[in-house]
Amino acid sequence: MTAPSYPVVRLTPKANARAIRRGFPWVYSNELVLDRRTKGLAPGTVAVLEDAERTPIGLVGMTPASKIAARMLDRDTDAEIGKDWLTARLSKALSLRERLFDAPYYRLVHAEADGFPGVIIDRFGDTCVIQPNAAWAEALLPQLAEALAEVTGITTILKNAGSRGRQLEGLDDENAILLGTAPDAPLPVEMNGATYMADLTGGQKTGLFYDQRPNHAFAARLAEGQDVLDVFSHVGGFALAALAGGAASALSVDGSAPALALAAQGAERMGAADRFDARQGDAFDVLGALGEEGRRFGIVICDPPAFAPAKPALEAGLRAYEKTARLAAPLVDEGGYLVLCSCSHAADLSSFTGACLRGIGRAGRRAQLLYTGGAGPDHPLMPQLAESGYLKALVFRL
Amino acid sequence: MTAPSYPVVRLTPKANARAIRRGFPWVYSNELVLDRRTKGLAPGTVAVLEDAERTPIGLVGMTPASKIAARMLDRDTDAEIGKDWLTARLSKALSLRERLFDAPYYRLVHAEADGFPGVIIDRFGDTCVIQPNAAWAEALLPQLAEALAEVTGITTILKNAGSRGRQLEGLDDENAILLGTAPDAPLPVEMNGATYMADLTGGQKTGLFYDQRPNHAFAARLAEGQDVLDVFSHVGGFALAALAGGAASALSVDGSAPALALAAQGAERMGAADRFDARQGDAFDVLGALGEEGRRFGIVICDPPAFAPAKPALEAGLRAYEKTARLAAPLVDEGGYLVLCSCSHAADLSSFTGACLRGIGRAGRRAQLLYTGGAGPDHPLMPQLAESGYLKALVFRL
Repeated sequence: MTAPSYPVVRLTPKANARAIRRGFPWVYSNELVLDRRTKGLAPGTVAVLEDAERTPIGLVGMTPASKIAARMLDRDTDAEIGKDWLTARLSKALSLRERLFDAPYYRLVHAEADGFPGVIIDRFGDTCVIQPNAAWAEALLPQLAEALAEVTGITTILKNAGSRGRQLEGLDDENAILLGTAPDAPLPVEMNGATYMADLTGGQKTGLFYDQRPNHAFAARLAEGQDVLDVFSHVGGFALAALAGGAASALSVDGSAPALALAAQGAERMGAADRFDARQGDAFDVLGALGEEGRRFGIVICDPPAFAPAKPALEAGLRAYEKTARLAAPLVDEGGYLVLCSCSHAADLSSFTGACLRGIGRAGRRAQLLYTGGAGPDHPLMPQLAESGYLKALVFRL
Repeated sequence: MTAPSYPVVRLTPKANARAIRRGFPWVYSNELVLDRRTKGLAPGTVAVLEDAERTPIGLVGMTPASKIAARMLDRDTDAEIGKDWLTARLSKALSLRERLFDAPYYRLVHAEADGFPGVIIDRFGDTCVIQPNAAWAEALLPQLAEALAEVTGITTILKNAGSRGRQLEGLDDENAILLGTAPDAPLPVEMNGATYMADLTGGQKTGLFYDQRPNHAFAARLAEGQDVLDVFSHVGGFALAALAGGAASALSVDGSAPALALAAQGAERMGAADRFDARQGDAFDVLGALGEEGRRFGIVICDPPAFAPAKPALEAGLRAYEKTARLAAPLVDEGGYLVLCSCSHAADLSSFTGACLRGIGRAGRRAQLLYTGGAGPDHPLMPQLAESGYLKALVFRL
């Protein structure tokens, strides 16, 4: 078998070839010689990347019209990017998850860090959901689905095309069923002893986030006998883990009625419906209302959506985190626990911690910091890509 | 009962009263009006701290001759710092640990963060080891020991006076038995399914560190069927956890023969003596020798002593971390795991991570970062005291 002859693309002399050689996985469009031939490459084309001196660096997946014009696929320019290549990378990703988890519920592929630039694959037992958020993966989707089925033995593959990343890559937002039949009901997912209901296909597509698993587990260790408030609860992430950990009660607050309905279904399946309650509404409003009602909890958790997704929103985002902490702290019993999370890329750990402490302080409380958690190990980081460490969970004792 | 009338000490106008009001727990000697009366206070005296405008801030424990001349004990100037006060704080610390752990093996008091400035108390079942590393605690030691016995029901209390902190406070280094009888053999300690032998009184006093518990647990999750190398192993911290996690073999390397003997005893008690081996020697020498022998491991762990304990040692320390990573990476199987730890105050997470990645890169390997861990939750942080977040454990997959 001879290696396919991939087209060649070239870095400009000003490009940061050193960073790319050291492992940075992206080539920005202003670092590439975008001549007519390169501009004319179909999105998803695999190409050989050379530096300005024509020394090959590796194979990249091209999206000439995107800001990230090329993504590093393999440092070996003799590699053939096809089904066997996909199979080898999937096998490596799977071997880590099988080592880490007893049951097949996890993020199987976490993009760049797993050697699949722009691709997310979440596994729910016999079903996988692929997000091909880069043109190279969209082009190779049939092979990727085949390799995935062979490596894992799963029977259903859904394509989720709803991410913002696909827009940036110029890709459509058409969901699809790549293998098998879409589940006609939410799937039960076991984590930390709790049962979550993941709606992968319904009108609401609330899905499930695996990244908070270790932080759910830590909160559950504190939960025995406690009344727990879980704000921004989604399908019951922290609330159901706390119930599994022996909480006396859990109250989920969320803006989404379908998400809360799934949380209630999970509690029901766990035989904990009598300890579960939900309140739909704006989180800040509900926090304020609970304060006025004089409610107190042994554990309060706030896991909001990204308040500071990108740099321009940083200041406003940090103010929102501070406000969250300020409204939540008064609801915590003396000696109780406050769990504050951020999934904002732009807010680093120290800014986020500072915002939380200001909020706690303005509520007139003092705190010990017991625990600092990130995303679980099925969300590995590519160290060269600082952006990848987005999730932060802090557990304070007040 | 009337409140005792404590002497008054006062901040200079230039002192950072705002930081102290916001929770910073120390008053440096150059922030205090050190008149003859204040200088004459016996070390350990409790005093009322006032700001330069004579507004009371709180009660402090004095060590007038030390750089940290006063440590905040209580924001309530009406408090009485005595046995009842100690009992209340110990009870609060205990309630956290009892919530977190099934068995009474943990750090019970972690200094400032638990409201006991300068005081460490480790619990080993019915035995506690106190390190009173501040003069106020030395002065109150009989009451502290009494309160500790009452709150926990333990039967033995040992005083460990070996810390550098005591020298800075002008305290002696005389160990003592404060209650009961010193154990005449190493104590078995169960953690993460492993059995560690803690020698609290023998000539070597190798003791045990609880801070790595969650990081041991994470490494153990990766251990099934693996050959594991634990460098700077002490009494077998990671090695025995890996054996409990199903490792095929574990090799402990350490400079201390008594520590390795305790590790072997632990493996023996676990019924895992046949899977355990030890090699005494300089860690860098042994890493180099294992490389030359062509040995490979599924997991390699390096948990060295603090290479960068303070700022002046930072550069040399980071080079030592880089060297550790460079020598360790070649011993890791393809797809295997490398665990690198730092307990250096001066090396922050990002510098330490950078040093590790440089070392891994210089060994010609690439890495995913799976896990970033700190000290366990029985080592809470006082957020106002950045120094307290010293421990970092990174788990890479190569």
